[in-house]
Amino acid sequence: MNLQTNLGIAIKEFRNNLGLSQEKFALSIEMDRTYLASVEAGKRNLSLANIEKIARGLNTNVSELFAKAESYN
Amino acid sequence: MNLQTNLGIAIKEFRNNLGLSQEKFALSIEMDRTYLASVEAGKRNLSLANIEKIARGLNTNVSELFAKAESYN
Repeated sequence: MNLQTNLGIAIKEFRNNLGLSQEKFALSIEMDRTYLASVEAGKRNLSLANIEKIARGLNTNVSELFAKAESYN
Repeated sequence: MNLQTNLGIAIKEFRNNLGLSQEKFALSIEMDRTYLASVEAGKRNLSLANIEKIARGLNTNVSELFAKAESYN
């Protein structure tokens, strides 16, 4: 699978581990819920700023988020 | 410093470790040299696709590139 798809899966996994719904998490990082849904579905070529915002909201750092995404290969 | 700036420094460090000039590296990943220069100067909110292209061209993965960027904090 490609990194965009794997990153979406990793974000979803981190979010679920925090017990947060998509709605609650999107609200917490001031991101549109439907945009977050498309990110988790691997449909967005995210910008660095949005990757950083998501990682911070998940209480992790960007390298950890990508290490998880790369682990699915 | 912010992640965008640190990522630029990390990219430059990885590139220098490979002994590649900006010009040669930009050519090798089919990226405009002046765009790469602005990336290394921390002036670009890179997309995931470009981050991946740069990491691949540096023979590393995205998580390692960000781990290096985060190490400057």
